[in-house]
Amino acid sequence: MAAPENYVGLDVGGTTMKAAVVTGAGVPLSKPVVMDTNPERGQEEGLETMCETIRRAVAAAGLTLADIAAIGVATPGLMDIKAGLILDPPNLKPWKNVPVRDHVAQAFGKPTAYQNDANAAAYGEFWVGAASDARSMVLFTLGTGVGGGIIIDDRIIEGEHSHGGELGHLRIAMPDTGRQCGCGARGCLEAYGSATNVVRRAREDMACWRGPASKLRNYYTANDEDFTAKVIFQHAAEGDELALKVVDDTAYYLALGACAVIATVDPQVIVFGGGMVAAGEWFRSKIDNYVKRFGLPFPTKSVKITFASLGSDAGFIGAAGCARLLARGK
Amino acid sequence: MAAPENYVGLDVGGTTMKAAVVTGAGVPLSKPVVMDTNPERGQEEGLETMCETIRRAVAAAGLTLADIAAIGVATPGLMDIKAGLILDPPNLKPWKNVPVRDHVAQAFGKPTAYQNDANAAAYGEFWVGAASDARSMVLFTLGTGVGGGIIIDDRIIEGEHSHGGELGHLRIAMPDTGRQCGCGARGCLEAYGSATNVVRRAREDMACWRGPASKLRNYYTANDEDFTAKVIFQHAAEGDELALKVVDDTAYYLALGACAVIATVDPQVIVFGGGMVAAGEWFRSKIDNYVKRFGLPFPTKSVKITFASLGSDAGFIGAAGCARLLARGK
Repeated sequence: MAAPENYVGLDVGGTTMKAAVVTGAGVPLSKPVVMDTNPERGQEEGLETMCETIRRAVAAAGLTLADIAAIGVATPGLMDIKAGLILDPPNLKPWKNVPVRDHVAQAFGKPTAYQNDANAAAYGEFWVGAASDARSMVLFTLGTGVGGGIIIDDRIIEGEHSHGGELGHLRIAMPDTGRQCGCGARGCLEAYGSATNVVRRAREDMACWRGPASKLRNYYTANDEDFTAKVIFQHAAEGDELALKVVDDTAYYLALGACAVIATVDPQVIVFGGGMVAAGEWFRSKIDNYVKRFGLPFPTKSVKITFASLGSDAGFIGAAGCARLLARGK
Repeated sequence: MAAPENYVGLDVGGTTMKAAVVTGAGVPLSKPVVMDTNPERGQEEGLETMCETIRRAVAAAGLTLADIAAIGVATPGLMDIKAGLILDPPNLKPWKNVPVRDHVAQAFGKPTAYQNDANAAAYGEFWVGAASDARSMVLFTLGTGVGGGIIIDDRIIEGEHSHGGELGHLRIAMPDTGRQCGCGARGCLEAYGSATNVVRRAREDMACWRGPASKLRNYYTANDEDFTAKVIFQHAAEGDELALKVVDDTAYYLALGACAVIATVDPQVIVFGGGMVAAGEWFRSKIDNYVKRFGLPFPTKSVKITFASLGSDAGFIGAAGCARLLARGK
């Protein structure tokens, strides 16, 4: 009898973790099971929560463990992918040197793949999402920070030190003039393109705005605490010129990041994922135009700039995809 | 009987082309045969010169075609690596759409690999040169321009549009403030780190130099036409402060390029090749220090920054290495 073609994908974040069973064709068999991560309760409990989330995902799919070929787990960095270890991630404090892969493998007696969460999301989009017809792709995830993942010929570029695709810390400006990044360095893409920094730039632009009257500025004055990237994009969509400047600059900065991956790995498709993609086609085409203007002419003629299609499911679907690669001996 | 483990590597440049037979262990069996490329005589003659260079290389090794398992040819871009075509390279004018791979394969009846010249040089250093003990490496070649190549797990990152590893056009400064590059864009690494631009920056620094008396400035005044990157590096080695500033800036810019490849592919080893590496360890350690200062902390702790070891042989050795990969079905 052929081995079962079902894989559990588990995506561990700082706040929650999610898991679902995914078929060999990349189809989740249920909505994801979501549990709180509660990192502050310690890593022993964290590992047990991971196992429980996996168990519930199998049950939610109406299956038993015998139906599962392999398990994939994705976590945020710092990590040692080859060793299967969480090292010291800022949003899973106080966890340190957590043997995630071996723990899960032993708990279930299944082959277990381990991957960085942004790499897993990239693999999900590559496998069955926005880049499912591509040979190579790069994902930029736009959230509180900027993450990334690079897939070439069905392989994840993990990097020698598990830092492959750390695209938020790709520098787009020189250290002496670049914006300060949360990582301590200056000029990182994240210091320009994350939701946090879109808001920060909007506040700065507002302070020296000399253009026409701006509803965004009025909104900000009344709702300082609720001033988000989403609000800025909404005002831009309505034609507010100040908001449009902020969004246009954002597209420019993201395009510079895209140009850098074109000059290094020259992918077939570049995918942007995360909250900002809700802005839609007008924002995508702005990025696309800047890529064509500032990127290497030959590859930028053909590279496809697109938005992610799996949303927040990309992580667990991709983790399941990694399990499938493992089961196939890749 | 086992297939012969000998490969011809041919490296085609704008001025000359070189070839030699290389064993399966990466050892050239003779000095390379060198012939003039004479691109102005047209591509038909160019293809015939390639074949003649290959024939002479086989003879120089004291072998016959029966001893050759496969052939590898490297050329400068623009090219279509998968199709085996030279497209429209600026330094092979007026050649256009030259079917290099199929022509050579048919002329000799041998499996023929085709690769970008900088990628081939990178593969040479990966296979038997400065990175022969590494799983992944990135090469920066410093010459009139800046080239590059990326190798991960014995595979060349060719890119979807044959532009993988175009590291000279990785941008290290924003387009509005960056230096003008020969490619038309601004801020490219090449506009800072190529030999041509080291000289250009030295002239600029000289014009506004307010430091101590500089022998480099005296030399320049007397020898404007013979003012080269080599002269600048020699003066720096002798302690000239103006020259030291130019070299130090060069190390800084190259390090920014290295930081970008760390944030994308996170290689085990970064190799610098080309004329400037003659400067030696003091220059290497300057680059290394800037990488540690400006790169992602975790991978830069371990990444190895080193100089190329195969010199100008890297191209044909790497091309032979590509032939070996092809013969092994990789």
